[in-house]
Amino acid sequence: MTRKIEIVEVGPRDGLQNDPVLLSTEMKLEFISRLIDAGVNRMEAASFVHPKLVPAMADSAEVMALAPRLDGVKYIGLALNERGLRRALEAGCDEINYVMVASPGFGLKNQNATPEQTADLFDKIAILAHDEAVPISVTVSVAFGDPFDGEVDPKILGMLAARARAAGACEFALGDTIGVADPWRVRKALDIVRAQSGDMRLRMHFHNTRNTAMANIAAAVDAGIDVIDASCGGIGGCPFAPAATGNVASEDVIYMLERGGFETGIDLGRMIATAKWLEDVALKHPVDSALKRAGGFPAPQA
Amino acid sequence: MTRKIEIVEVGPRDGLQNDPVLLSTEMKLEFISRLIDAGVNRMEAASFVHPKLVPAMADSAEVMALAPRLDGVKYIGLALNERGLRRALEAGCDEINYVMVASPGFGLKNQNATPEQTADLFDKIAILAHDEAVPISVTVSVAFGDPFDGEVDPKILGMLAARARAAGACEFALGDTIGVADPWRVRKALDIVRAQSGDMRLRMHFHNTRNTAMANIAAAVDAGIDVIDASCGGIGGCPFAPAATGNVASEDVIYMLERGGFETGIDLGRMIATAKWLEDVALKHPVDSALKRAGGFPAPQA
Repeated sequence: MTRKIEIVEVGPRDGLQNDPVLLSTEMKLEFISRLIDAGVNRMEAASFVHPKLVPAMADSAEVMALAPRLDGVKYIGLALNERGLRRALEAGCDEINYVMVASPGFGLKNQNATPEQTADLFDKIAILAHDEAVPISVTVSVAFGDPFDGEVDPKILGMLAARARAAGACEFALGDTIGVADPWRVRKALDIVRAQSGDMRLRMHFHNTRNTAMANIAAAVDAGIDVIDASCGGIGGCPFAPAATGNVASEDVIYMLERGGFETGIDLGRMIATAKWLEDVALKHPVDSALKRAGGFPAPQA
Repeated sequence: MTRKIEIVEVGPRDGLQNDPVLLSTEMKLEFISRLIDAGVNRMEAASFVHPKLVPAMADSAEVMALAPRLDGVKYIGLALNERGLRRALEAGCDEINYVMVASPGFGLKNQNATPEQTADLFDKIAILAHDEAVPISVTVSVAFGDPFDGEVDPKILGMLAARARAAGACEFALGDTIGVADPWRVRKALDIVRAQSGDMRLRMHFHNTRNTAMANIAAAVDAGIDVIDASCGGIGGCPFAPAATGNVASEDVIYMLERGGFETGIDLGRMIATAKWLEDVALKHPVDSALKRAGGFPAPQA
């Protein structure tokens, strides 16, 4: 039987939030519809961080109100504090994603908290999500290296996994915010995290800043990971992380995994067409996607 | 003990041969010297294909005559037929590289030969190299897919490995000319090739056309491969292979492997500086290198 790998599409939130082009709500909804047509059934679509900090996500409640509600399509909303969580619940997000940090340098700059403080806050807000029976997941930022502090001890990832699990996270992800992971480090980190994660699902979030994202994904999949974040067209990044270029492109990940014999449930041709639409119509600037440039092999049906 | 992975630098030959900019012999020699300063000790530096087909390599004999001869630095010259081999030997190449093709569609277009015919010709010219005590290696082109024929049956790679070994090749490489390999296919191919290769060394040559080169390299290294082709700045490609973008960038490979705990003997900072020199001074056009854009982590000493 073909092994299924779930691709969590992060383009509409992590992808768009720092793009120099501010998309209209209408264009965001078209993006979301195109992704659903391609087969995406779980995506980051909204952020309930203060709109002054992330103006591109100021219309998140409206996006959630207008996005098509289809059986099996789940929308994830980002929330970093209690106020954000309440807004995400009110907007009708199917799932909340919260961010813990692996290192204080980035943590204090990005969300004014140390790793422990992000775990403490999660204890509080996870209860509020559970009260509404909405699943809440955790993504750890700078899990493989911090632009200010340097190396991150993977033991902290184990500690954060234990905290996330104890507080009832539905899923725990390691995020390589600045793109410094390598396949061997990914495996070691997963060994440490697995010892603490019990039956909590694990997900990986890689940036391709140093051209290692695809190798890291292959290593993670080989280590048993079944859920991978990716962004149509490779859009996105983090404005607070120096030299962090985009997320790994969904179409590149889908190509590699499907060619490697895995099933993603996503149509490669349609995902490539959506990356082209982002480049030509929505954002009107180049996107970083190898499959958009080269096409699939054998050529996918569009 | 740290495991050593040998990087064969292909920039001065495979990288430059199709670049729109024709470098002067003097600039090629500067490129070679910079690579040696970075720690490269085995590189493709010359091609003895007809100069009408590859005008950028017309000065290969001169490059070989003027390149610094240092203990432990080996220059590889490409030869596809008897005439080319004789010229390569005359020019003083330390090693000859010959190309077999894995599929007739590309083979007939690129060197007017089927896979079997490229193996038959190798039988003849390997003898001539052996007569001069010069090692001769084989690289198989389109080993993971042919732009004209589509899929390549990996059994043919086993057949070609057996032929190369029987004829005394010092090394056998699988080349993903159009960038369609994936890590799982790489492993399967290596299993098949290993059954035929005895103690003949194996090498891998990946293009990053579909963003899979680094994942393929990691898979190959995990499968025991100790020799990897890469090109400073990711320059190069093949004019006869549609949509084939560049080789994988040496600095990206070095970063991933060194960060993963392997030793390459090459200074990352100097390789990045050489990629920058290619972009700013020698070629004056952008090169495709993640490490040149992002820098190492922690920042390498330049």
